Amino acid sequence: MYLEQINQPSDVRKLNKEQRTELAAEMRQALLEKLSKHGGHFGPNFGMVEATIALHYVFDSPTDKMVYDISHQSYCHKMLTGRKDAFLYEENYDDVTGFSNQNESEHDFFILGHTSTSVSLACGLAKARDLKSEKENIIAIIGDGSLSGGEALEGLDFAPELESNLIIVVNDNDMSIAENHGGLYRNLKQLRDSNGTTECNLFKAMGLDYLFVKDGNDTEQLIEAFEKAKDINHPIVVHINTQKGKGYLPAEKDRENWHYSGPFEIETGKSVYSSNRENYSDMTAEFLMEKMKEDKTLVAISSGTPTVLGFTADKRKEVGSQFVDVGIAEEHAVALASGIAAGGGNPVYGVYSTFLQRTYDQLSQDLCINNNPATIVNFAASVYGMTDVTHLGFFDIPMISNIPNLVYLAPTTKEEYIAMLDWSITQKEHPVAIRVPGGGVISGGESITRDYGNLNQYEVAQKGKKAAIVALGTFYSLGKEVASEIAEKTGVQPTLINPLYITGIDEKLLEELKAEHEVVITIEDGILDGGFGEKITRFYGASDVKVINYGFKKEFLDRYDVKEVLHKNRMTKEQIVEDILDIIGN
Amino acid sequence: MYLEQINQPSDVRKLNKEQRTELAAEMRQALLEKLSKHGGHFGPNFGMVEATIALHYVFDSPTDKMVYDISHQSYCHKMLTGRKDAFLYEENYDDVTGFSNQNESEHDFFILGHTSTSVSLACGLAKARDLKSEKENIIAIIGDGSLSGGEALEGLDFAPELESNLIIVVNDNDMSIAENHGGLYRNLKQLRDSNGTTECNLFKAMGLDYLFVKDGNDTEQLIEAFEKAKDINHPIVVHINTQKGKGYLPAEKDRENWHYSGPFEIETGKSVYSSNRENYSDMTAEFLMEKMKEDKTLVAISSGTPTVLGFTADKRKEVGSQFVDVGIAEEHAVALASGIAAGGGNPVYGVYSTFLQRTYDQLSQDLCINNNPATIVNFAASVYGMTDVTHLGFFDIPMISNIPNLVYLAPTTKEEYIAMLDWSITQKEHPVAIRVPGGGVISGGESITRDYGNLNQYEVAQKGKKAAIVALGTFYSLGKEVASEIAEKTGVQPTLINPLYITGIDEKLLEELKAEHEVVITIEDGILDGGFGEKITRFYGASDVKVINYGFKKEFLDRYDVKEVLHKNRMTKEQIVEDILDIIGN
Repeated sequence: MYLEQINQPSDVRKLNKEQRTELAAEMRQALLEKLSKHGGHFGPNFGMVEATIALHYVFDSPTDKMVYDISHQSYCHKMLTGRKDAFLYEENYDDVTGFSNQNESEHDFFILGHTSTSVSLACGLAKARDLKSEKENIIAIIGDGSLSGGEALEGLDFAPELESNLIIVVNDNDMSIAENHGGLYRNLKQLRDSNGTTECNLFKAMGLDYLFVKDGNDTEQLIEAFEKAKDINHPIVVHINTQKGKGYLPAEKDRENWHYSGPFEIETGKSVYSSNRENYSDMTAEFLMEKMKEDKTLVAISSGTPTVLGFTADKRKEVGSQFVDVGIAEEHAVALASGIAAGGGNPVYGVYSTFLQRTYDQLSQDLCINNNPATIVNFAASVYGMTDVTHLGFFDIPMISNIPNLVYLAPTTKEEYIAMLDWSITQKEHPVAIRVPGGGVISGGESITRDYGNLNQYEVAQKGKKAAIVALGTFYSLGKEVASEIAEKTGVQPTLINPLYITGIDEKLLEELKAEHEVVITIEDGILDGGFGEKITRFYGASDVKVINYGFKKEFLDRYDVKEVLHKNRMTKEQIVEDILDIIGN
Repeated sequence: MYLEQINQPSDVRKLNKEQRTELAAEMRQALLEKLSKHGGHFGPNFGMVEATIALHYVFDSPTDKMVYDISHQSYCHKMLTGRKDAFLYEENYDDVTGFSNQNESEHDFFILGHTSTSVSLACGLAKARDLKSEKENIIAIIGDGSLSGGEALEGLDFAPELESNLIIVVNDNDMSIAENHGGLYRNLKQLRDSNGTTECNLFKAMGLDYLFVKDGNDTEQLIEAFEKAKDINHPIVVHINTQKGKGYLPAEKDRENWHYSGPFEIETGKSVYSSNRENYSDMTAEFLMEKMKEDKTLVAISSGTPTVLGFTADKRKEVGSQFVDVGIAEEHAVALASGIAAGGGNPVYGVYSTFLQRTYDQLSQDLCINNNPATIVNFAASVYGMTDVTHLGFFDIPMISNIPNLVYLAPTTKEEYIAMLDWSITQKEHPVAIRVPGGGVISGGESITRDYGNLNQYEVAQKGKKAAIVALGTFYSLGKEVASEIAEKTGVQPTLINPLYITGIDEKLLEELKAEHEVVITIEDGILDGGFGEKITRFYGASDVKVINYGFKKEFLDRYDVKEVLHKNRMTKEQIVEDILDIIGN
């Protein structure tokens, strides 16, 4: 087995043509076995086996530096740079993360997991090299799906300004997560169809030199192209035509569903775990599709992740022009939503919290200054969301809730979520964002109809005294448990509040609490700094009421255990009860 | 005079060719007179006179809808849409803002003032039109300088997906504020030089139809082109070659300095007010240029506003490759800086606070997760900054200071600013941002050397008791005045603290204050929600110490008076003293 003998990239250079072919087969087999047990990004890596071999055959990593966009195509790179064990042996599977990581290997230069950043980061490495008068090759590897992101396009436009070595490998498998969207993909197709010869060429129009590789899964063609690009004295794009999921039939056939895969049976490709669990994505699509029948201006928007809103391929087809996937282009998505609302349409943009980070300025300028009634549904904004450091979703409250005019709502149950969504797409007064609760779907039992236009009126679930518990969104049920425990331990019922609104405080209610409460506590599913609880604390700053805020420390967590995070932030029921009793006594 | 008779766009359509020529001359004269007295965006508007006449001649606003990117080229549009008085009569000059504004006229559809948004917003109007099965023309007007912004590129890429009418007028005057930077500008030049016939065409490569107008200051050529584009059933770019500053010799000759102009003498073009006031921009360039001599990896970065860092054309020339203007591409600027730092270079990115809003995700993902030692200098992050609603700079603290790993510093004097900048470019541990103080430059008298690497150690300027005043950045001097007044009125010296760090609290110091202080107040030059003061308040939440936070209400202000804003937020010395005395007694 050749893969077992690859301890560093120079070992790849010892192989001859036949051995390289064998190595590719071994890498695919290792990927297949690991991913069948462990899950991971499937399609992109299966397409990049040969290109990664060719890159390490031609270039001298880590002197020559490779930056893999978003990292979804970096598993093969990891295999060839001293990390093969994490793909060969089950006990080592978790030795590596799913992302590039400079702390893991000297062959990685950044921790990265958002799309469209590689060209700009590589430009930085190239500029540093030039300032230091050094000579190594800098290589960015970016998938076609990532090209539509503003940061990538800014990077491509800037690259020619360097006037020095920079090699941008465009891994074109003709797919984003789902199908691509955007005019530039027509140009990529023209380039593929013409063997790279079409005169009208996006990359050349951006000022870049250009090379095309017809079969991006042919190691020898790739080596030839990379040899040409090596040590070049200006930026060049090497456009390689690869096949997503190459070498595994189910993945070749259904490229959208095999972009990422959970554990599966190798023989059939069937998922090991089947989940019919109720979830907010499906619920959202179902609700919106019903409403779309009555309101022809209602339009769902996605930025490259259509299923976050529950819009699977069949549902997209069903609603036709009432669903828009803008491709990976979050900034555009928010501005588009604002424009649609300004034009009298009814837009709902669904997005993962970690990617909404791309849109602070669009939320502020395009949307909120104009006060346009668009709806944003923010998914995985929770400690129960994605746990990789590059995909954390719990920084959203400080980021977006402090933008004026925005109404940011925190439902606690599925009924409340639907009621808020229903209100939002009906009203015409405010830009609204809704924070989908984390953890499993909780039902409150009864359906809710409420006009949330009476801003910042919190809901008092239970009037009590001494302690008041203001429990936001996800952690409302925790707040409820704390309240019961306090009642049980002290014989005095505390007040329990569902604040509903993240973006404002209910001054009247908070003022009233002063009379019979010694302590107010807040619990939120986000970092404390700049968050919801601090607003309550500020309100009581000059009063005698004591306030304790529960939330997370401001820090980048990585692949964490939720229970541990809650415990270390004193957010278990027991810890909170203890703190409250410390103040109000038993 | 024809301009006097233009009360609505339909009045433009009554004019014949000669009359249109006369109208253009009158519009230039009116612009010249107003801007000579009032100041404003000069170059872009002088170049757009004929195109605006042609647009309103061909299209039927407001049924047909025009969106002017960034609004710097919208003055002529205002003149022809019922707002001529604001350009003809001095007493009416302030009747209009410098920006598009739907509250000002039915011919405007958005309040906008950041670059690169028009295409996406227009896509939204077009999508809403399509959903409503209507037929009007949607027109985006965007300058060449704005094309390099990620949001604009995302919009151009998405536009073809509409498959319906959208007209994108690219106003190409071959200039951003300063010269353009980016490979796409080479393509624009090829297109201009070939009369639009070059096969390799950025817009076509994005999937857009294309028309070229050789002389974008010839109304008749423009009318012909717009007539062709009118009612077209797919997105098209009309690329018009205009002359920035056209018709006023000083502006034609020095296009960078005449992009925007303060009041000037019409005969000579000389500025009416000459300012030799000390300022942070010049100070920064001077300091960096000195350091660049010793450190060849030190590189200053700008995103289209080079003079914010003090780098005028001559200084840019002097430092050569140690200055990089990435064009309008803030996201790229932050990622580039992170890449340079990762590669061992020493980047300093200077930016206006309002534009740093573009980079939340890049700050978080590209920079702070990687903990790379880049320096960001944030200008006009103050109530004393720009006062237009689209250019407010005082939302930065909630936005960026709650990102982990970032060290955000708030100097109070020029000596402190330089000491912080000096420390930042020397250290290799942290990404650092420095918040340039607002208002005039204040000197503390003596130069400072300090290792700011001991994070979150506040400076106690004066130990006292009963009240402690934590006064951040710009408002340190206000805090000092408050302290004096309290001492005078009560005979007891309060404690005065310069916190220096926005991103963390000095827990040890705050703990010590508990012993002899009844009240702690914080003063910051930013909104209260999610800001600095709330962190202090949270610290004291469960203690007996009372806290009052001073800062601004979360709201979009527009063209405000600073004194009024401070007064209504209870931020005058008198108000703060009154509040403190209420708690500690006289």
